[in-house]
Amino acid sequence: MKQLLYGVAYYFEYLPYDRIDQDIEMMKAAGINVVRIGESTWSTYEPHDGEFDFSKLIYTLDKMDKNGMKVIVGTPTYAFPTWLAKEYPDVLVERQGNRLPYGARQIMDITNPTFRFYAERIIRQMMQVTREYDNVIGYQVDNETKHYGTSSRNVQAGFVDYLKQAFNGDLDALNAEFGLDYWSNRINAWEDFPNVNGTINGSLAGEFAKYQRQLVTDYLAWQTAIVREYTHDNQFITHNFDFEWRGYSYGVQPDVDHFAAAKPLDVVGIDVYHPSQRQLTGAEISFAGDIARSIKQQNYLVLETQAQAFKTWTPYPGQLFQLAFSHVASGANMVEYWHWHSIHNSFETYWKGLLSHDFQPNPVYNEAKKVGAAFKKLSADLINLKHTAKVAFVVDNASLTATSGPWMEFGIGEDAKYNDVFRRLYDAFYRQNIATDVLDPKLIDPAKYDLLVVPMLYTATDEFLQKLNDYVENGGHVLYTFKDGVANEHVKVRTTRQPGIISQAVGAHYEMFVDPNGEGLADSAGVFKDVDGQISNWAELLETDGAKVLATYDHHWKSYAAITENNFGKGMTWYLGCWPNEAIVERLVEHIVAVLGLAGSYQVQFPLIVKSGINEQAEKIDFIFNYSDENQAIIMPFAATELLTDTSVAAGQEVELAPWDVKIMKRG
Amino acid sequence: MKQLLYGVAYYFEYLPYDRIDQDIEMMKAAGINVVRIGESTWSTYEPHDGEFDFSKLIYTLDKMDKNGMKVIVGTPTYAFPTWLAKEYPDVLVERQGNRLPYGARQIMDITNPTFRFYAERIIRQMMQVTREYDNVIGYQVDNETKHYGTSSRNVQAGFVDYLKQAFNGDLDALNAEFGLDYWSNRINAWEDFPNVNGTINGSLAGEFAKYQRQLVTDYLAWQTAIVREYTHDNQFITHNFDFEWRGYSYGVQPDVDHFAAAKPLDVVGIDVYHPSQRQLTGAEISFAGDIARSIKQQNYLVLETQAQAFKTWTPYPGQLFQLAFSHVASGANMVEYWHWHSIHNSFETYWKGLLSHDFQPNPVYNEAKKVGAAFKKLSADLINLKHTAKVAFVVDNASLTATSGPWMEFGIGEDAKYNDVFRRLYDAFYRQNIATDVLDPKLIDPAKYDLLVVPMLYTATDEFLQKLNDYVENGGHVLYTFKDGVANEHVKVRTTRQPGIISQAVGAHYEMFVDPNGEGLADSAGVFKDVDGQISNWAELLETDGAKVLATYDHHWKSYAAITENNFGKGMTWYLGCWPNEAIVERLVEHIVAVLGLAGSYQVQFPLIVKSGINEQAEKIDFIFNYSDENQAIIMPFAATELLTDTSVAAGQEVELAPWDVKIMKRG
Amino acid sequence: MKQLLYGVAYYFEYLPYDRIDQDIEMMKAAGINVVRIGESTWSTYEPHDGEFDFSKLIYTLDKMDKNGMKVIVGTPTYAFPTWLAKEYPDVLVERQGNRLPYGARQIMDITNPTFRFYAERIIRQMMQVTREYDNVIGYQVDNETKHYGTSSRNVQAGFVDYLKQAFNGDLDALNAEFGLDYWSNRINAWEDFPNVNGTINGSLAGEFAKYQRQLVTDYLAWQTAIVREYTHDNQFITHNFDFEWRGYSYGVQPDVDHFAAAKPLDVVGIDVYHPSQRQLTGAEISFAGDIARSIKQQNYLVLETQAQAFKTWTPYPGQLFQLAFSHVASGANMVEYWHWHSIHNSFETYWKGLLSHDFQPNPVYNEAKKVGAAFKKLSADLINLKHTAKVAFVVDNASLTATSGPWMEFGIGEDAKYNDVFRRLYDAFYRQNIATDVLDPKLIDPAKYDLLVVPMLYTATDEFLQKLNDYVENGGHVLYTFKDGVANEHVKVRTTRQPGIISQAVGAHYEMFVDPNGEGLADSAGVFKDVDGQISNWAELLETDGAKVLATYDHHWKSYAAITENNFGKGMTWYLGCWPNEAIVERLVEHIVAVLGLAGSYQVQFPLIVKSGINEQAEKIDFIFNYSDENQAIIMPFAATELLTDTSVAAGQEVELAPWDVKIMKRG
Repeated sequence: MKQLLYGVAYYFEYLPYDRIDQDIEMMKAAGINVVRIGESTWSTYEPHDGEFDFSKLIYTLDKMDKNGMKVIVGTPTYAFPTWLAKEYPDVLVERQGNRLPYGARQIMDITNPTFRFYAERIIRQMMQVTREYDNVIGYQVDNETKHYGTSSRNVQAGFVDYLKQAFNGDLDALNAEFGLDYWSNRINAWEDFPNVNGTINGSLAGEFAKYQRQLVTDYLAWQTAIVREYTHDNQFITHNFDFEWRGYSYGVQPDVDHFAAAKPLDVVGIDVYHPSQRQLTGAEISFAGDIARSIKQQNYLVLETQAQAFKTWTPYPGQLFQLAFSHVASGANMVEYWHWHSIHNSFETYWKGLLSHDFQPNPVYNEAKKVGAAFKKLSADLINLKHTAKVAFVVDNASLTATSGPWMEFGIGEDAKYNDVFRRLYDAFYRQNIATDVLDPKLIDPAKYDLLVVPMLYTATDEFLQKLNDYVENGGHVLYTFKDGVANEHVKVRTTRQPGIISQAVGAHYEMFVDPNGEGLADSAGVFKDVDGQISNWAELLETDGAKVLATYDHHWKSYAAITENNFGKGMTWYLGCWPNEAIVERLVEHIVAVLGLAGSYQVQFPLIVKSGINEQAEKIDFIFNYSDENQAIIMPFAATELLTDTSVAAGQEVELAPWDVKIMKRG
Repeated sequence: MKQLLYGVAYYFEYLPYDRIDQDIEMMKAAGINVVRIGESTWSTYEPHDGEFDFSKLIYTLDKMDKNGMKVIVGTPTYAFPTWLAKEYPDVLVERQGNRLPYGARQIMDITNPTFRFYAERIIRQMMQVTREYDNVIGYQVDNETKHYGTSSRNVQAGFVDYLKQAFNGDLDALNAEFGLDYWSNRINAWEDFPNVNGTINGSLAGEFAKYQRQLVTDYLAWQTAIVREYTHDNQFITHNFDFEWRGYSYGVQPDVDHFAAAKPLDVVGIDVYHPSQRQLTGAEISFAGDIARSIKQQNYLVLETQAQAFKTWTPYPGQLFQLAFSHVASGANMVEYWHWHSIHNSFETYWKGLLSHDFQPNPVYNEAKKVGAAFKKLSADLINLKHTAKVAFVVDNASLTATSGPWMEFGIGEDAKYNDVFRRLYDAFYRQNIATDVLDPKLIDPAKYDLLVVPMLYTATDEFLQKLNDYVENGGHVLYTFKDGVANEHVKVRTTRQPGIISQAVGAHYEMFVDPNGEGLADSAGVFKDVDGQISNWAELLETDGAKVLATYDHHWKSYAAITENNFGKGMTWYLGCWPNEAIVERLVEHIVAVLGLAGSYQVQFPLIVKSGINEQAEKIDFIFNYSDENQAIIMPFAATELLTDTSVAAGQEVELAPWDVKIMKRG
Repeated sequence: MKQLLYGVAYYFEYLPYDRIDQDIEMMKAAGINVVRIGESTWSTYEPHDGEFDFSKLIYTLDKMDKNGMKVIVGTPTYAFPTWLAKEYPDVLVERQGNRLPYGARQIMDITNPTFRFYAERIIRQMMQVTREYDNVIGYQVDNETKHYGTSSRNVQAGFVDYLKQAFNGDLDALNAEFGLDYWSNRINAWEDFPNVNGTINGSLAGEFAKYQRQLVTDYLAWQTAIVREYTHDNQFITHNFDFEWRGYSYGVQPDVDHFAAAKPLDVVGIDVYHPSQRQLTGAEISFAGDIARSIKQQNYLVLETQAQAFKTWTPYPGQLFQLAFSHVASGANMVEYWHWHSIHNSFETYWKGLLSHDFQPNPVYNEAKKVGAAFKKLSADLINLKHTAKVAFVVDNASLTATSGPWMEFGIGEDAKYNDVFRRLYDAFYRQNIATDVLDPKLIDPAKYDLLVVPMLYTATDEFLQKLNDYVENGGHVLYTFKDGVANEHVKVRTTRQPGIISQAVGAHYEMFVDPNGEGLADSAGVFKDVDGQISNWAELLETDGAKVLATYDHHWKSYAAITENNFGKGMTWYLGCWPNEAIVERLVEHIVAVLGLAGSYQVQFPLIVKSGINEQAEKIDFIFNYSDENQAIIMPFAATELLTDTSVAAGQEVELAPWDVKIMKRG
């Protein structure tokens, strides 16, 4: 990228009347320099099977071109026309034996050859129409693709083939590895393989989830290859990845392997939606940004984020401005709202855009104008910021799905699911202003980091766990949690003492685990002094093999350790054997940060958040955010120039931040 | 009607043994003078396809006739025989693609020709058998008819035809009006029209709901026309309408357009079920009665209400007596219990009747005797009471369904649905003893009223909204609420500033709305002084264009108005832009009542409820109810005669009411 | 039995590697002398249709034989092979019209002839392989069999035949008895009989539930007869019955008639799972044991109970030891854990066994060693203990299902279902250390007991109720509850005054019932002095016909009785007409115990629990349990020898019990 992009999703097709000229005028007034178009209007472009009408797309492209607006074109495949459903009902995905009805988006079977045929044809048509536009800077393939639970006959067959290959046709090996003798699930001939929808076997289900994620990877690679036949060198290909959805972007996406699926793309795109108003913390922007940036160790695009959106998200004055720079501070080169204008019919009528239904300037639009101006002014300072982190999280789709299913009777509890654990740890580092990367076991190079945080890596290969032991032995540091290292890559629980291979570096093991059931923590080494020792959901009864005990339990299980610290080789490990409240996690992270000397120069923590990067001029840029309703102050550790206001600040000077304020400091 | 009717539903067919003589004797002893029979025993009357056996019906009719008991005969079509389901499974309604199993009532497809054929035949047979009975005073067609979600192939086809006609075959117009380009839902050929069950388009879904209500109207008209071929001039035709069910009659019925469906009937019938015991307020009897009376501006029949019913409804001593007059006070000419005797098997065993399973006199039956005696004594005074109201509610099925669907991502919140808003406003007027009518936009004549209350009229035509503006300009008054006037008649949000057309009379507008998220109201003009300003779920950020601000928000959004008052032409409007607690609504209504001088002569409010009417002798009758567990007193504004006790009361005299008491005053 | 059995379920087939020798060695070290094998690995034994491979079974049997370990062999039919599902999909049970997918256990249609054919063949093959082993002491047929909601075409047809027979083909009688005229459900020809899945008729549904339970009885009798062809005289046949499951064994099993189904068996087996840790009370072990023992008035086997199981059940130190003797104290001759080793894959990975996944000795295993040693030492003292109870509960499947269905609109409330009522009463007796039997109306001989407790016997024959009247008249005592005696055996409510026939002995009746709705109890006779009078869910308005009033209601219904006591003939009855809190039930039970002189010699109550039995040497054995986290003390009423410690205890001596302790006293 050569400049900061500020964009909106724009649907000329949805407009109740043609007001494109006014729209573009208003966009330009707000400093908006890019629009994303085309990704959900197949039915407009191909009104009948094989009849194409790109007039609205061309009209939009021409207008944008004339006005110097850049465009990202989306392939329109995530929502398909009525005529296709009518002609070929089996393009509709079959989930748990039920074919979804026509109506919503994201209801296609991404493996269906008929769907692929029609998708390919519309993509090729659209590429021919759009590729020669100078202002088309890139393409987005599909949108928020997932597997949609596809489990139709061909998927079942494909999965059996996949297993046959993985096990070299050795059914006995498969039965043994997956424990299929249990409840007579043993499969004695490949042709007996049952539909996996009904399975209660966690290994089989876990492997099927992996296979379904592979289908997503394949599908995106297939689309990317088609688009790649047409793009020019200056046009990128991206995709809009999203995250586990809990009414907003909450954590690691279970249905897509972001790290694998992003490979054929030029640049990673994401959508980030988050709580706002009094509930705004910036944590979702940070974790999602860390993932997006880590995938390719490269800057990324925010293809969608909220403008007004819902009644609970409409930003307080100041927040929209602050939010734009939150994204940039994490490494985004583009911030693009979903969407320009609120829609007057259908499903997302009240997922509001930058403009309300009346298309008039409003307080949020007016604040966007300030963002646009600041982006323009600071583009050269803030584009392509490089980030470095001493701490990395290791996250893992397979562990996420393995710990989610009913087949596990896992019972850690509703509030301690994989992403809860990831987020409670992530947020503790975030709130203490420790920069982090987020990677998966296949991509991470431990040697690059001072500390790895490994939340609930339930299923992992011996090799990776051994690699972590080696990393520690050679001077690395790992923070482990309960349920780490329990099962092998096929979700078969290890027969060694838990936590298996990593016990060696952890210097402790356990044979039993219990529900705290009222039990709490007792501080053993001063780390948790004067903190409420409340834990819930899970307590491993740790016995040390040399590790130092940081906390034990406090009643029936007080002879067991709950949190340990260990020196192993030249490195150290921490093991969190229970599910504690936020205060305890925060203390543990503080302790580790202190032991390892990870703290940054700014001695602040949430609600003051600091993010830093190196710009193309090799200058160090610090973003300081006040995520609160109150005024805050910070003592500057350096002399700097505040870029938004062009103000010089002396080292040691107190800088005030209004509620929901942001300052951007260029050091020196 | 010539006399007050006091009735029960009577099912001779359900009796465990023939005790009709004792039953009639006990009815007569209780002053019961009418029974409703026949409406759910088709299988008894037509045991095999084409074989009819009305012996039990005739036996019952003869017995009733001999004993001078009037009879309302119900057509038996809302529950059909096993043999019909066996022979023609497609008479069972198909809902969301699933055909319901045989067993319950109200499971037929009201559009199915086979069902229509068999229903017509049994109706005609039954009419021939019953029409010549002198004591048959009327017929009820079907029972609590709704569309039951019918969406089978023929209904889908019918709906497409309906749209084709509505849009003169112009698909482009339909696509534009309904916003179908969104998510590639665009329909480019009529034959591509997808099954509407899966739609996520609020306009399409809203129109389908309208079409389904039309099916109910058509079905009742069809049955009425058949019955009409047989009735004599002195026999009426009615139907038993019911209301949105939340364990009791809560609000406007979403699945039937009462105002349209009642047209072919002679008299409106309803069923009213309501909380009882400590939870009895009389509000359900009042709102349901207001609707029933308003439909034809005429007295109505309570075809079903509770005697003992459920364990939570068994009336306290005094309540059954009070309740009978609550209905009469609202304009009912008949009060009929469901049902005479509790049923010994099946589904409604514990929906108890006037008698328990033992058929013995019991406290509730004994109280019914007092009702019967009082009805007999006061029939001439209380029959055909005329009511006048200065205030009318405008309610609207289409706005109800448009604001209910998931396709809206509407998010006002679980506690602020259409009927919640209707009821909170209705109840405030009720508790302040302001008489009201309830009508819909098609029927209402604004000029007849001093004040219209328009809760959440989300979808409306330009014409109607303009009519409301004109009404105000010419001296009328309207109380509007949030979400009024937002969308046109096809649930397409207006592109003007909200609240669209009515903004003119409201003198305010808004571009944004938020969740209060902890925000409250701040009093601006004294109306809400010293009231808890708590609001929830919804807050429109109003900016005035001349309106007076009655309340603003109190924190982040304090620069915006929340409740306004405006003079427009010769009239006034109030706009309630948020969802406040009951106390605030009550204050607002008090304020409006004071400004417009709407208060009645009795200076009381809930738990003392006063209802008034003019009888056939042009005398003014006031009913005074004490809906509480405590004694209450009232100062009489007039001299009057208390009719139940034949006591004279002087003006200014204090009249005491025992708990759950009723007094009936004839003025003068 | 000749010795106390201490066992585990052992699945050689599930082992990740062959460690049978170590396993047996560890079992023997723990005093484990029996294993249950084979009941869920059909697919291992018959890998392809008609190809049998019992090598793993034989290997296990040989190893056990050589090591002197006894074996119970389970028929493997409750989980079937993939090939069978593939070849004959209709072996999968069809529930409410949906065929279950392959995967889980207990998904077969137990009535399906194909399933029966294959089940019979594998059973016969397995019997031939195993019957000659001397160490095979018995067989378990199937496992936790239920009807799984089977309602396929043949079941529907079978049900119609069953009714035809029951009513001698008289449809009119059926229609009358079941009240089918209601809602036009009348059936006028047998061939019109609708699928009963959709029924809303409680009588029909109740009868279908009865028929489904009969299918279970038939299925187990069929399997038992097959197995019986092969067993030697010294080999028993048992089945593993379980109970209503609310996350643990809660109450009477709705889907199986234990009393009927156990008839062909030699010995009753059960599984008992219960809350543990701080939530352990022993009540589940007691009620389940009482049922198991009462069925055949004989000792029983605990075929499954928890070792570590779930995180919430992992026993505190001392509990596993205590629990083993809790079972023996109730009459168990065997305590067998489910299961030996925790499973490394699939569904029950975290339903842990005695060993964790690492197969190492752990605290729970170490405690099992103490159990094994104690069992060995005390076997002769504790085997075949005889119990006598002066109090019996009368429980009834039909009343349970009749009061559960939606067809009842019963509305007693979520917290007052059949098993809630059973358990609240049962637990009150349990906590006061009153020994009880639990029987059903078909088996009980009232004359054997001083007191019968009859919770919610909603449906019963005239004969049985008359028998209870006679029992009381002749000197017996009955504690009745609300809803007793209401309906006849076809769930048709009686037309007499309630509670019908038993009113005579109760000396009271009611015509109405209400929800307490804030109402409480008022003490009338000192029994409930100073207790919180809170009731909920249900209140019958009792009027006495001579009964003494123990409590009335306290507000609107204060003229009615709530709890009564009556002398009838030589006996007495109590009637509990409402659903009170535990304190009131406890007081009522205390009162009855005092009136009838039922208290035992130990003057203690929960958390001290005493159970007594007579051993084969005619010695009286008392078990004393401390079910609490605190130390407790007891004054010995007799001189005794504490058997675990071989300590003599004098009469009047104080004996201390540590938390979760058990003492076993041999009197004298």
